[in-house]
Amino acid sequence: MCSVIGRVGPARRALAGTLRLGASTEGSRYAASESRRFYPGLSSRVDPLRAPSRSYCSRMALTEGLLFRQLFESESSTYTYLLADTETKDAVLIDPVLETIDRDLKLIHELGLNLKVAVNTHCHADHITSTGLMKKRLVGLKSAISKFSGASADIHLTEGDKISFGKHYLTVRETPGHTDGCVALVSGDQSMVFTGDALLIRGCGRTDFQQGCAKKLYNSVHQKIFTLPEQCLVYPAHDYLGQTVSTVGEERKFNPRLTKSLEEFVKIMNNLNLPKPKKIDISVPANLVCGVHQV
Amino acid sequence: MCSVIGRVGPARRALAGTLRLGASTEGSRYAASESRRFYPGLSSRVDPLRAPSRSYCSRMALTEGLLFRQLFESESSTYTYLLADTETKDAVLIDPVLETIDRDLKLIHELGLNLKVAVNTHCHADHITSTGLMKKRLVGLKSAISKFSGASADIHLTEGDKISFGKHYLTVRETPGHTDGCVALVSGDQSMVFTGDALLIRGCGRTDFQQGCAKKLYNSVHQKIFTLPEQCLVYPAHDYLGQTVSTVGEERKFNPRLTKSLEEFVKIMNNLNLPKPKKIDISVPANLVCGVHQV
Repeated sequence: MCSVIGRVGPARRALAGTLRLGASTEGSRYAASESRRFYPGLSSRVDPLRAPSRSYCSRMALTEGLLFRQLFESESSTYTYLLADTETKDAVLIDPVLETIDRDLKLIHELGLNLKVAVNTHCHADHITSTGLMKKRLVGLKSAISKFSGASADIHLTEGDKISFGKHYLTVRETPGHTDGCVALVSGDQSMVFTGDALLIRGCGRTDFQQGCAKKLYNSVHQKIFTLPEQCLVYPAHDYLGQTVSTVGEERKFNPRLTKSLEEFVKIMNNLNLPKPKKIDISVPANLVCGVHQV
Repeated sequence: MCSVIGRVGPARRALAGTLRLGASTEGSRYAASESRRFYPGLSSRVDPLRAPSRSYCSRMALTEGLLFRQLFESESSTYTYLLADTETKDAVLIDPVLETIDRDLKLIHELGLNLKVAVNTHCHADHITSTGLMKKRLVGLKSAISKFSGASADIHLTEGDKISFGKHYLTVRETPGHTDGCVALVSGDQSMVFTGDALLIRGCGRTDFQQGCAKKLYNSVHQKIFTLPEQCLVYPAHDYLGQTVSTVGEERKFNPRLTKSLEEFVKIMNNLNLPKPKKIDISVPANLVCGVHQV
Protein backbone atom coordinates (compact mmCIF):
# COMPACT_ATOMS: atom_id res chain seq x y z
CA MET A 1 0.00 0.00 0.00
CA CYS A 2 1.33 3.40 -0.93
CA SER A 3 2.53 5.51 1.96
CA VAL A 4 0.43 8.47 0.87
CA ILE A 5 -2.75 6.57 1.56
CA GLY A 6 -4.04 6.11 5.07
CA ARG A 7 -6.87 3.72 5.61
CA VAL A 8 -9.43 3.89 8.38
CA GLY A 9 -10.92 0.98 10.26
CA PRO A 10 -14.43 -0.38 9.67
CA ALA A 11 -15.88 1.35 12.74
CA ARG A 12 -14.64 4.79 11.76
CA ARG A 13 -15.63 4.18 8.15
CA ALA A 14 -19.17 3.33 9.18
CA LEU A 15 -19.31 6.49 11.24
CA ALA A 16 -18.02 8.56 8.33
CA GLY A 17 -20.77 7.17 6.19
CA THR A 18 -23.54 8.26 8.50
CA LEU A 19 -22.24 11.37 10.21
CA ARG A 20 -23.97 14.51 9.04
CA LEU A 21 -21.61 17.43 9.09
CA GLY A 22 -23.13 20.86 9.57
CA ALA A 23 -25.82 20.28 7.01
CA SER A 24 -28.23 22.61 8.71
CA THR A 25 -30.87 24.31 6.63
CA GLU A 26 -31.40 27.01 9.20
CA GLY A 27 -32.55 30.16 7.49
CA SER A 28 -30.40 33.27 7.73
CA ARG A 29 -31.64 36.55 9.11
CA TYR A 30 -29.73 38.17 6.28
CA ALA A 31 -31.50 36.21 3.61
CA ALA A 32 -34.85 37.24 4.98
CA SER A 33 -33.95 40.90 5.18
CA GLU A 34 -32.30 41.17 1.79
CA SER A 35 -34.38 42.78 -0.91
CA ARG A 36 -34.89 40.64 -3.97
CA ARG A 37 -34.68 43.30 -6.58
CA PHE A 38 -34.01 40.94 -9.46
CA TYR A 39 -37.16 38.89 -9.10
CA PRO A 40 -39.34 40.76 -6.63
CA GLY A 41 -41.49 38.48 -4.56
CA LEU A 42 -39.14 35.53 -4.69
CA SER A 43 -38.32 34.52 -1.16
CA SER A 44 -35.29 32.70 0.12
CA ARG A 45 -35.27 30.42 3.13
CA VAL A 46 -31.66 29.32 3.03
CA ASP A 47 -28.79 31.69 2.47
CA PRO A 48 -26.04 29.88 0.58
CA LEU A 49 -23.54 32.60 1.48
CA ARG A 50 -23.83 32.11 5.21
CA ALA A 51 -23.34 28.98 7.23
CA PRO A 52 -25.01 28.84 10.61
CA SER A 53 -21.79 28.41 12.53
CA ARG A 54 -18.74 28.83 10.29
CA SER A 55 -17.73 32.24 9.06
CA TYR A 56 -15.16 31.52 6.38
CA CYS A 57 -16.10 32.91 3.06
CA SER A 58 -17.22 31.03 0.00
CA ARG A 59 -14.23 32.26 -1.94
CA MET A 60 -11.96 30.14 0.13
CA ALA A 61 -11.58 28.22 3.28
CA LEU A 62 -8.93 29.19 5.74
CA THR A 63 -6.54 26.42 4.82
CA GLU A 64 -3.07 27.79 5.32
CA GLY A 65 -0.17 26.47 3.34
CA LEU A 66 -2.25 24.95 0.58
CA LEU A 67 -1.54 25.73 -3.03
CA PHE A 68 -4.53 25.23 -5.28
CA ARG A 69 -4.93 25.48 -9.03
CA GLN A 70 -7.95 24.82 -11.17
CA LEU A 71 -7.10 24.02 -14.79
CA PHE A 72 -9.43 23.55 -17.75
CA GLU A 73 -9.32 21.35 -20.84
CA SER A 74 -11.62 22.89 -23.40
CA GLU A 75 -12.34 19.97 -25.76
CA SER A 76 -13.99 17.83 -23.08
CA SER A 77 -14.69 20.78 -20.74
CA THR A 78 -12.80 18.96 -17.99
CA TYR A 79 -11.37 20.53 -14.86
CA THR A 80 -8.05 19.27 -13.55
CA TYR A 81 -7.06 20.25 -10.02
CA LEU A 82 -3.60 20.64 -8.61
CA LEU A 83 -3.18 20.76 -4.83
CA ALA A 84 0.11 21.04 -2.99
CA ASP A 85 1.59 21.66 0.42
CA THR A 86 3.53 24.92 0.13
CA GLU A 87 6.06 23.72 2.71
CA THR A 88 6.89 20.19 1.59
CA LYS A 89 5.85 20.77 -2.05
CA ASP A 90 4.13 17.38 -2.09
CA ALA A 91 1.27 17.53 -4.58
CA VAL A 92 -1.80 15.71 -5.83
CA LEU A 93 -3.35 16.06 -9.28
CA ILE A 94 -7.03 15.27 -9.82
CA ASP A 95 -8.43 14.22 -13.21
CA PRO A 96 -5.55 15.15 -15.52
CA VAL A 97 -6.30 15.05 -19.26
CA LEU A 98 -4.04 13.66 -21.96
CA GLU A 99 -4.30 16.75 -24.17
CA THR A 100 -3.02 19.07 -21.44
CA ILE A 101 -0.22 16.94 -20.01
CA ASP A 102 2.51 19.33 -21.16
CA ARG A 103 0.80 22.36 -19.63
CA ASP A 104 0.30 20.52 -16.35
CA LEU A 105 3.84 19.15 -16.15
CA LYS A 106 5.27 22.58 -16.97
CA LEU A 107 3.31 24.16 -14.12
CA ILE A 108 4.28 21.39 -11.70
CA HIS A 109 7.90 21.91 -12.67
CA GLU A 110 7.77 25.70 -12.41
CA LEU A 111 6.22 25.54 -8.97
CA GLY A 112 8.85 23.03 -7.88
CA LEU A 113 6.25 20.49 -6.82
CA ASN A 114 6.76 16.86 -6.02
CA LEU A 115 3.73 15.16 -7.56
CA LYS A 116 2.89 12.14 -5.41
CA VAL A 117 -0.46 10.96 -6.74
CA ALA A 118 -2.53 11.44 -9.89
CA VAL A 119 -6.06 10.45 -9.00
CA ASN A 120 -9.07 10.01 -11.25
CA THR A 121 -12.50 10.53 -9.73
CA HIS A 122 -13.77 7.73 -12.01
CA CYS A 123 -13.13 5.95 -15.30
CA HIS A 124 -13.93 8.80 -17.69
CA ALA A 125 -15.90 8.29 -20.90
CA ASP A 126 -15.31 11.69 -22.49
CA HIS A 127 -11.54 12.03 -22.41
CA ILE A 128 -8.41 9.98 -21.85
CA THR A 129 -6.53 10.47 -18.61
CA SER A 130 -2.90 11.54 -18.74
CA THR A 131 -2.11 9.52 -15.62
CA GLY A 132 -0.33 6.68 -17.42
CA LEU A 133 1.83 8.93 -19.55
CA MET A 134 2.56 11.18 -16.58
CA LYS A 135 3.83 8.17 -14.63
CA LYS A 136 6.36 7.59 -17.40
CA ARG A 137 7.56 11.17 -17.12
CA LEU A 138 7.61 11.53 -13.33
CA VAL A 139 9.56 8.98 -11.33
CA GLY A 140 7.66 7.75 -8.31
CA LEU A 141 4.25 9.09 -9.29
CA LYS A 142 1.39 6.80 -8.23
CA SER A 143 -1.95 6.50 -9.99
CA ALA A 144 -5.14 6.14 -7.96
CA ILE A 145 -8.75 5.34 -8.77
CA SER A 146 -11.70 3.66 -7.07
CA LYS A 147 -11.47 -0.05 -6.44
CA PHE A 148 -14.90 -0.30 -8.03
CA SER A 149 -13.88 1.39 -11.29
CA GLY A 150 -12.50 -1.85 -12.72
CA ALA A 151 -9.44 0.11 -13.84
CA SER A 152 -5.85 -0.75 -13.11
CA ALA A 153 -3.86 1.66 -10.94
CA ASP A 154 -1.19 1.69 -8.25
CA ILE A 155 -3.74 2.56 -5.58
CA HIS A 156 -7.31 1.34 -5.42
CA LEU A 157 -9.37 3.69 -3.31
CA THR A 158 -12.26 2.83 -1.02
CA GLU A 159 -14.47 4.78 1.38
CA GLY A 160 -12.56 6.71 4.03
CA ASP A 161 -9.10 6.40 2.45
CA LYS A 162 -6.91 9.43 2.88
CA ILE A 163 -4.62 10.77 0.16
CA SER A 164 -1.94 12.75 1.98
CA PHE A 165 0.36 15.46 0.59
CA GLY A 166 2.47 17.21 3.20
CA LYS A 167 0.25 18.20 6.10
CA HIS A 168 -2.85 18.14 3.93
CA TYR A 169 -5.01 15.27 2.82
CA LEU A 170 -8.08 14.38 0.80
CA THR A 171 -10.62 11.88 2.11
CA VAL A 172 -12.35 9.50 -0.26
CA ARG A 173 -16.14 9.29 -0.28
CA GLU A 174 -17.63 6.73 -2.62
CA THR A 175 -20.34 8.27 -4.79
CA PRO A 176 -21.60 5.61 -7.22
CA GLY A 177 -24.34 6.45 -9.69
CA HIS A 178 -22.65 8.03 -12.70
CA THR A 179 -20.43 4.95 -12.64
CA ASP A 180 -19.93 2.28 -9.97
CA GLY A 181 -16.41 3.54 -9.33
CA CYS A 182 -17.02 7.24 -8.73
CA VAL A 183 -15.49 8.97 -5.73
CA ALA A 184 -15.63 12.46 -4.28
CA LEU A 185 -12.50 13.81 -2.62
CA VAL A 186 -12.94 16.01 0.43
CA SER A 187 -10.21 18.28 1.78
CA GLY A 188 -9.17 17.67 5.39
CA ASP A 189 -10.98 20.72 6.72
CA GLN A 190 -14.05 20.01 4.56
CA SER A 191 -13.70 23.37 2.84
CA MET A 192 -13.48 21.82 -0.65
CA VAL A 193 -14.98 18.80 -2.33
CA PHE A 194 -13.96 17.48 -5.73
CA THR A 195 -17.15 15.90 -6.93
CA GLY A 196 -16.11 14.31 -10.21
CA ASP A 197 -19.20 13.72 -12.36
CA ALA A 198 -21.51 12.98 -9.44
CA LEU A 199 -22.40 16.60 -8.77
CA LEU A 200 -21.84 19.36 -11.32
CA ILE A 201 -22.65 23.05 -10.89
CA ARG A 202 -26.45 23.15 -11.15
CA GLY A 203 -26.30 19.72 -12.73
CA CYS A 204 -24.99 16.17 -12.38
CA GLY A 205 -23.39 13.43 -14.41
CA ARG A 206 -25.53 11.27 -16.67
CA THR A 207 -26.59 7.78 -15.61
CA ASP A 208 -27.31 6.03 -18.88
CA PHE A 209 -24.07 4.10 -19.45
CA GLN A 210 -21.12 2.57 -17.55
CA GLN A 211 -23.21 1.08 -14.72
CA GLY A 212 -25.10 4.35 -14.43
CA CYS A 213 -27.98 4.33 -11.96
CA ALA A 214 -30.03 7.43 -11.19
CA LYS A 215 -31.19 6.17 -7.80
CA LYS A 216 -27.63 5.43 -6.71
CA LEU A 217 -26.46 8.86 -7.89
CA TYR A 218 -29.24 10.64 -6.01
CA ASN A 219 -28.40 8.81 -2.80
CA SER A 220 -24.66 9.39 -3.25
CA VAL A 221 -25.06 13.14 -3.67
CA HIS A 222 -27.52 13.47 -0.80
CA GLN A 223 -25.63 11.23 1.60
CA LYS A 224 -22.01 11.95 0.72
CA ILE A 225 -21.90 15.51 -0.66
CA PHE A 226 -24.94 17.40 0.59
CA THR A 227 -23.96 16.38 4.15
CA LEU A 228 -20.81 18.50 3.92
CA PRO A 229 -20.82 22.06 5.38
CA GLU A 230 -22.87 24.57 3.39
CA GLN A 231 -19.84 26.73 2.53
CA CYS A 232 -17.81 23.76 1.34
CA LEU A 233 -16.65 24.67 -2.17
CA VAL A 234 -17.83 22.32 -4.91
CA TYR A 235 -15.27 21.69 -7.64
CA PRO A 236 -16.73 19.46 -10.35
CA ALA A 237 -14.95 17.47 -13.05
CA HIS A 238 -16.73 19.44 -15.77
CA ASP A 239 -18.54 22.62 -16.53
CA TYR A 240 -19.98 23.64 -19.86
CA LEU A 241 -21.09 27.19 -19.04
CA GLY A 242 -17.91 28.84 -17.78
CA GLN A 243 -18.72 28.33 -14.12
CA THR A 244 -15.73 27.38 -11.98
CA VAL A 245 -17.04 26.66 -8.51
CA SER A 246 -20.15 26.38 -6.39
CA THR A 247 -20.88 25.52 -2.77
CA VAL A 248 -22.72 22.66 -1.12
CA GLY A 249 -25.25 25.19 0.16
CA GLU A 250 -25.91 26.54 -3.30
CA GLU A 251 -26.34 23.13 -4.86
CA ARG A 252 -28.64 22.01 -2.09
CA LYS A 253 -30.79 25.01 -2.87
CA PHE A 254 -30.45 25.64 -6.59
CA ASN A 255 -29.47 22.39 -8.31
CA PRO A 256 -32.39 21.86 -10.68
CA ARG A 257 -32.13 18.07 -10.52
CA LEU A 258 -30.90 17.19 -7.05
CA THR A 259 -33.47 19.39 -5.31
CA LYS A 260 -36.21 17.16 -6.70
CA SER A 261 -37.58 14.06 -5.01
CA LEU A 262 -35.86 10.76 -5.76
CA GLU A 263 -38.76 9.72 -7.94
CA GLU A 264 -38.72 12.94 -9.97
CA PHE A 265 -34.93 12.80 -10.26
CA VAL A 266 -35.00 9.24 -11.64
CA LYS A 267 -37.64 10.28 -14.16
CA ILE A 268 -35.57 13.26 -15.31
CA MET A 269 -32.40 11.21 -15.63
CA ASN A 270 -34.09 8.39 -17.49
CA ASN A 271 -35.50 10.78 -20.07
CA LEU A 272 -32.48 12.90 -20.97
CA ASN A 273 -32.00 11.07 -24.28
CA LEU A 274 -28.47 12.35 -24.71
CA PRO A 275 -26.22 11.23 -27.55
CA LYS A 276 -23.40 8.88 -26.57
CA PRO A 277 -20.15 10.71 -25.66
CA LYS A 278 -18.08 11.07 -28.82
CA LYS A 279 -14.97 9.50 -27.35
CA ILE A 280 -16.53 6.78 -25.19
CA ASP A 281 -15.35 3.88 -27.33
CA ILE A 282 -11.72 4.93 -27.09
CA SER A 283 -11.76 6.65 -23.71
CA VAL A 284 -13.18 3.90 -21.52
CA PRO A 285 -10.86 1.10 -22.74
CA ALA A 286 -7.87 3.46 -22.47
CA ASN A 287 -8.83 4.69 -19.01
CA LEU A 288 -9.22 1.12 -17.79
CA VAL A 289 -5.46 0.84 -18.26
CA CYS A 290 -4.62 4.28 -16.84
CA GLY A 291 -4.73 6.11 -20.17
CA VAL A 292 -3.10 5.13 -23.41
CA HIS A 293 0.04 4.02 -21.61
CA GLN A 294 -0.36 1.20 -19.15
CA VAL A 295 0.68 1.55 -15.53
CA MET B 1 -19.41 61.07 -7.73
CA CYS B 2 -20.77 57.68 -6.84
CA SER B 3 -20.70 56.83 -3.17
CA VAL B 4 -18.98 53.52 -3.79
CA ILE B 5 -15.88 55.31 -4.98
CA GLY B 6 -13.43 56.84 -2.54
CA ARG B 7 -10.67 59.03 -3.89
CA VAL B 8 -7.29 59.56 -2.26
CA GLY B 9 -5.31 62.77 -2.14
CA PRO B 10 -2.26 63.48 -4.31
CA ALA B 11 0.23 62.78 -1.48
CA ARG B 12 -1.16 59.35 -0.70
CA ARG B 13 -1.50 58.61 -4.39
CA ALA B 14 2.14 59.41 -5.00
CA LEU B 15 3.09 57.15 -2.13
CA ALA B 16 0.97 54.34 -3.48
CA GLY B 17 2.70 54.68 -6.79
CA THR B 18 6.18 54.26 -5.38
CA LEU B 19 5.75 52.02 -2.37
CA ARG B 20 7.12 48.54 -2.95
CA LEU B 21 5.09 46.01 -1.08
CA GLY B 22 6.88 42.85 -0.08
CA ALA B 23 8.33 42.34 -3.50
CA SER B 24 11.45 40.73 -2.12
CA THR B 25 13.30 38.24 -4.23
CA GLU B 26 14.85 36.61 -1.20
CA GLY B 27 15.44 32.97 -1.96
CA SER B 28 13.67 30.40 0.12
CA ARG B 29 15.51 27.76 2.06
CA TYR B 30 12.83 25.41 0.86
CA ALA B 31 13.42 26.18 -2.77
CA ALA B 32 17.10 25.50 -2.39
CA SER B 33 16.55 22.20 -0.64
CA GLU B 34 13.85 20.91 -2.93
CA SER B 35 14.94 18.37 -5.48
CA ARG B 36 14.27 19.31 -9.07
CA ARG B 37 13.32 15.93 -10.37
CA PHE B 38 11.53 17.18 -13.47
CA TYR B 39 14.48 18.98 -14.99
CA PRO B 40 17.50 17.93 -12.93
CA GLY B 41 20.10 20.61 -12.64
CA LEU B 42 17.69 23.50 -12.97
CA SER B 43 18.09 25.74 -9.97
CA SER B 44 15.58 28.12 -8.48
CA ARG B 45 16.50 31.33 -6.72
CA VAL B 46 13.01 32.60 -6.02
CA ASP B 47 10.30 30.41 -4.66
CA PRO B 48 6.96 31.62 -6.00
CA LEU B 49 5.12 29.58 -3.39
CA ARG B 50 6.67 31.30 -0.42
CA ALA B 51 6.74 34.96 0.47
CA PRO B 52 9.47 36.07 2.82
CA SER B 53 7.14 37.51 5.39
CA ARG B 54 3.54 36.51 4.68
CA SER B 55 2.39 32.97 5.17
CA TYR B 56 -0.96 32.86 3.47
CA CYS B 57 -1.17 30.35 0.73
CA SER B 58 -1.34 30.95 -2.97
CA ARG B 59 -4.72 29.32 -3.17
CA MET B 60 -6.27 32.19 -1.35
CA ALA B 61 -5.66 35.08 0.90
CA LEU B 62 -7.21 35.17 4.31
CA THR B 63 -9.93 37.62 3.41
CA GLU B 64 -12.88 36.75 5.55
CA GLY B 65 -16.37 37.49 4.40
CA LEU B 66 -15.53 37.81 0.73
CA LEU B 67 -17.43 35.87 -1.89
CA PHE B 68 -15.48 35.36 -5.07
CA ARG B 69 -16.44 33.78 -8.38
CA GLN B 70 -14.43 33.45 -11.54
CA LEU B 71 -16.55 33.00 -14.65
CA PHE B 72 -15.48 32.25 -18.21
CA GLU B 73 -16.84 33.25 -21.62
CA SER B 74 -15.50 30.76 -24.12
CA GLU B 75 -15.88 32.62 -27.44
CA SER B 76 -13.52 35.44 -26.45
CA SER B 77 -11.83 33.45 -23.64
CA THR B 78 -12.74 36.23 -21.22
CA TYR B 79 -12.84 35.95 -17.45
CA THR B 80 -15.55 37.80 -15.57
CA TYR B 81 -15.13 38.18 -11.81
CA LEU B 82 -17.84 38.55 -9.22
CA LEU B 83 -16.86 39.77 -5.76
CA ALA B 84 -19.25 40.38 -2.89
CA ASP B 85 -19.37 41.07 0.81
CA THR B 86 -21.07 38.07 2.40
CA GLU B 87 -22.58 40.25 5.12
CA THR B 88 -24.00 43.24 3.22
CA LYS B 89 -24.30 41.35 -0.11
CA ASP B 90 -22.91 44.38 -1.94
CA ALA B 91 -21.13 43.18 -5.07
CA VAL B 92 -18.85 44.24 -7.89
CA LEU B 93 -18.61 42.61 -11.32
CA ILE B 94 -15.42 42.92 -13.37
CA ASP B 95 -15.41 42.64 -17.18
CA PRO B 96 -18.85 41.14 -17.82
CA VAL B 97 -19.49 39.90 -21.36
CA LEU B 98 -22.67 40.41 -23.38
CA GLU B 99 -23.01 36.73 -24.31
CA THR B 100 -23.06 35.59 -20.69
CA ILE B 101 -25.30 38.27 -19.19
CA ASP B 102 -28.09 35.82 -18.38
CA ARG B 103 -25.76 33.40 -16.61
CA ASP B 104 -24.23 36.22 -14.60
CA LEU B 105 -27.56 37.80 -13.62
CA LYS B 106 -28.96 34.41 -12.63
CA LEU B 107 -26.01 33.79 -10.32
CA ILE B 108 -26.24 37.29 -8.83
CA HIS B 109 -29.91 36.70 -8.21
CA GLU B 110 -29.45 33.24 -6.71
CA LEU B 111 -26.79 34.50 -4.33
CA GLY B 112 -29.01 37.38 -3.32
CA LEU B 113 -26.39 39.96 -4.22
CA ASN B 114 -26.81 43.68 -4.60
CA LEU B 115 -24.65 44.53 -7.60
CA LYS B 116 -23.30 48.05 -7.10
CA VAL B 117 -20.73 48.47 -9.86
CA ALA B 118 -19.90 46.78 -13.14
CA VAL B 119 -16.36 47.78 -13.99
CA ASN B 120 -14.39 47.21 -17.17
CA THR B 121 -10.62 47.02 -16.89
CA HIS B 122 -10.44 48.75 -20.30
CA CYS B 123 -12.33 49.32 -23.54
CA HIS B 124 -12.24 45.77 -24.90
CA ALA B 125 -11.60 44.99 -28.56
CA ASP B 126 -12.48 41.30 -28.55
CA HIS B 127 -15.93 41.26 -27.01
CA ILE B 128 -18.78 43.57 -26.12
CA THR B 129 -19.34 44.38 -22.48
CA SER B 130 -22.70 43.58 -20.92
CA THR B 131 -22.46 46.60 -18.64
CA GLY B 132 -24.94 48.75 -20.55
CA LEU B 133 -27.58 46.05 -20.84
CA MET B 134 -27.04 45.04 -17.23
CA LYS B 135 -27.73 48.62 -16.13
CA LYS B 136 -31.10 48.36 -17.83
CA ARG B 137 -31.89 45.19 -15.92
CA LEU B 138 -30.58 46.18 -12.49
CA VAL B 139 -31.84 49.37 -10.94
CA GLY B 140 -29.05 51.46 -9.43
CA LEU B 141 -26.15 49.63 -11.03
CA LYS B 142 -23.27 51.95 -11.93
CA SER B 143 -20.80 51.41 -14.75
CA ALA B 144 -17.12 52.22 -14.25
CA ILE B 145 -14.10 52.46 -16.53
CA SER B 146 -10.87 54.41 -16.69
CA LYS B 147 -11.10 58.13 -17.36
CA PHE B 148 -8.48 57.58 -20.06
CA SER B 149 -10.49 54.93 -21.92
CA GLY B 150 -12.50 57.55 -23.77
CA ALA B 151 -15.61 55.53 -22.98
CA SER B 152 -18.76 56.85 -21.36
CA ALA B 153 -19.67 55.48 -17.94
CA ASP B 154 -21.19 56.55 -14.64
CA ILE B 155 -17.82 56.51 -12.93
CA HIS B 156 -14.52 57.47 -14.49
CA LEU B 157 -11.69 55.85 -12.59
CA THR B 158 -8.23 57.25 -11.93
CA GLU B 159 -5.19 56.11 -9.96
CA GLY B 160 -5.88 55.36 -6.31
CA ASP B 161 -9.69 55.33 -6.56
CA LYS B 162 -11.38 52.80 -4.35
CA ILE B 163 -14.40 50.75 -5.42
CA SER B 164 -16.12 49.72 -2.20
CA PHE B 165 -18.56 46.86 -1.63
CA GLY B 166 -19.49 46.28 1.99
CA LYS B 167 -16.34 46.21 4.06
CA HIS B 168 -14.21 45.29 1.06
CA TYR B 169 -12.78 47.45 -1.69
CA LEU B 170 -10.72 47.37 -4.84
CA THR B 171 -8.05 49.98 -5.48
CA VAL B 172 -7.42 51.27 -8.99
CA ARG B 173 -3.92 51.20 -10.44
CA GLU B 174 -3.52 52.71 -13.88
CA THR B 175 -1.70 50.31 -16.20
CA PRO B 176 -1.56 51.87 -19.69
CA GLY B 177 0.16 50.04 -22.51
CA HIS B 178 -2.39 47.63 -23.97
CA THR B 179 -4.64 50.70 -24.20
CA ASP B 180 -4.31 54.13 -22.63
CA GLY B 181 -7.28 53.42 -20.39
CA CYS B 182 -6.26 50.14 -18.77
CA VAL B 183 -6.49 49.67 -15.03
CA ALA B 184 -5.62 46.89 -12.61
CA LEU B 185 -7.86 46.41 -9.59
CA VAL B 186 -6.22 45.39 -6.34
CA SER B 187 -8.11 43.92 -3.39
CA GLY B 188 -7.83 45.82 -0.10
CA ASP B 189 -5.46 43.30 1.46
CA GLN B 190 -3.43 43.01 -1.75
CA SER B 191 -4.15 39.30 -1.95
CA MET B 192 -5.70 39.55 -5.43
CA VAL B 193 -5.12 41.68 -8.48
CA PHE B 194 -7.37 41.81 -11.52
CA THR B 195 -4.94 42.65 -14.25
CA GLY B 196 -7.17 43.07 -17.29
CA ASP B 197 -5.10 42.67 -20.45
CA ALA B 198 -1.95 44.22 -19.00
CA LEU B 199 -0.65 41.00 -17.48
CA LEU B 200 -1.89 37.57 -18.53
CA ILE B 201 -0.74 34.22 -17.15
CA ARG B 202 2.71 33.76 -18.69
CA GLY B 203 1.77 36.44 -21.21
CA CYS B 204 0.45 39.97 -21.68
CA GLY B 205 -1.95 41.94 -23.83
CA ARG B 206 -0.90 43.02 -27.31
CA THR B 207 0.21 46.58 -27.98
CA ASP B 208 -0.41 47.04 -31.68
CA PHE B 209 -3.75 48.87 -31.69
CA GLN B 210 -5.92 51.16 -29.54
CA GLN B 211 -3.04 53.39 -28.35
CA GLY B 212 -0.95 50.32 -27.63
CA CYS B 213 2.60 51.00 -26.51
CA ALA B 214 5.00 48.22 -25.50
CA LYS B 215 7.21 50.51 -23.39
CA LYS B 216 4.21 51.81 -21.43
CA LEU B 217 2.94 48.27 -20.86
CA TYR B 218 6.31 47.08 -19.60
CA ASN B 219 6.56 49.95 -17.15
CA SER B 220 2.96 49.53 -16.01
CA VAL B 221 3.43 45.84 -15.21
CA HIS B 222 6.76 46.35 -13.48
CA GLN B 223 5.71 49.41 -11.50
CA LYS B 224 2.08 48.67 -10.72
CA ILE B 225 1.72 44.88 -10.65
CA PHE B 226 5.13 43.35 -9.98
CA THR B 227 5.42 45.60 -6.91
CA LEU B 228 2.54 43.75 -5.24
CA PRO B 229 3.31 40.93 -2.76
CA GLU B 230 4.67 37.77 -4.34
CA GLN B 231 1.69 35.66 -3.23
CA CYS B 232 -0.83 38.15 -4.59
CA LEU B 233 -3.11 36.13 -6.88
CA VAL B 234 -3.15 37.32 -10.50
CA TYR B 235 -6.55 37.12 -12.17
CA PRO B 236 -6.31 38.16 -15.82
CA ALA B 237 -9.05 39.20 -18.24
CA HIS B 238 -8.25 36.30 -20.53
CA ASP B 239 -6.62 32.94 -20.73
CA TYR B 240 -6.39 30.73 -23.77
CA LEU B 241 -4.84 27.62 -22.22
CA GLY B 242 -7.24 26.73 -19.43
CA GLN B 243 -5.21 28.42 -16.72
CA THR B 244 -7.29 30.25 -14.13
CA VAL B 245 -4.88 32.05 -11.84
CA SER B 246 -1.24 32.84 -11.20
CA THR B 247 0.67 34.86 -8.63
CA VAL B 248 2.80 37.98 -8.84
CA GLY B 249 5.79 35.90 -7.76
CA GLU B 250 5.25 33.38 -10.52
CA GLU B 251 4.86 36.00 -13.22
CA ARG B 252 7.93 37.86 -12.03
CA LYS B 253 9.84 34.64 -12.43
CA PHE B 254 8.24 32.78 -15.31
CA ASN B 255 6.49 35.28 -17.59
CA PRO B 256 8.33 34.74 -20.85
CA ARG B 257 7.90 38.36 -21.96
CA LEU B 258 7.93 40.48 -18.82
CA THR B 259 11.08 38.85 -17.45
CA LYS B 260 13.00 40.26 -20.42
CA SER B 261 14.68 43.67 -20.53
CA LEU B 262 12.58 46.60 -21.70
CA GLU B 263 14.44 46.61 -25.00
CA GLU B 264 13.89 42.91 -25.62
CA PHE B 265 10.25 43.21 -24.58
CA VAL B 266 9.58 46.03 -27.03
CA LYS B 267 11.21 44.01 -29.81
CA ILE B 268 9.07 40.97 -29.01
CA MET B 269 5.86 42.98 -28.86
CA ASN B 270 6.58 44.86 -32.08
CA ASN B 271 7.13 41.64 -33.97
CA LEU B 272 4.14 39.55 -32.95
CA ASN B 273 2.38 40.15 -36.28
CA LEU B 274 -0.98 39.03 -34.94
CA PRO B 275 -4.16 39.22 -36.98
CA LYS B 276 -6.59 41.95 -35.95
CA PRO B 277 -9.17 40.79 -33.38
CA LYS B 278 -12.21 39.50 -35.25
CA LYS B 279 -14.68 41.69 -33.40
CA ILE B 280 -12.64 44.87 -33.03
CA ASP B 281 -14.70 46.92 -35.47
CA ILE B 282 -17.92 46.27 -33.61
CA SER B 283 -16.55 45.83 -30.07
CA VAL B 284 -14.65 49.07 -29.64
CA PRO B 285 -17.41 51.42 -30.86
CA ALA B 286 -19.94 49.50 -28.74
CA ASN B 287 -17.75 49.49 -25.66
CA LEU B 288 -17.17 53.23 -25.96
CA VAL B 289 -20.86 53.58 -25.14
CA CYS B 290 -20.91 50.92 -22.39
CA GLY B 291 -21.86 48.04 -24.68
CA VAL B 292 -24.62 47.95 -27.25
CA HIS B 293 -26.96 49.82 -24.98
CA GLN B 294 -25.91 53.29 -23.99
CA VAL B 295 -25.55 54.31 -20.35
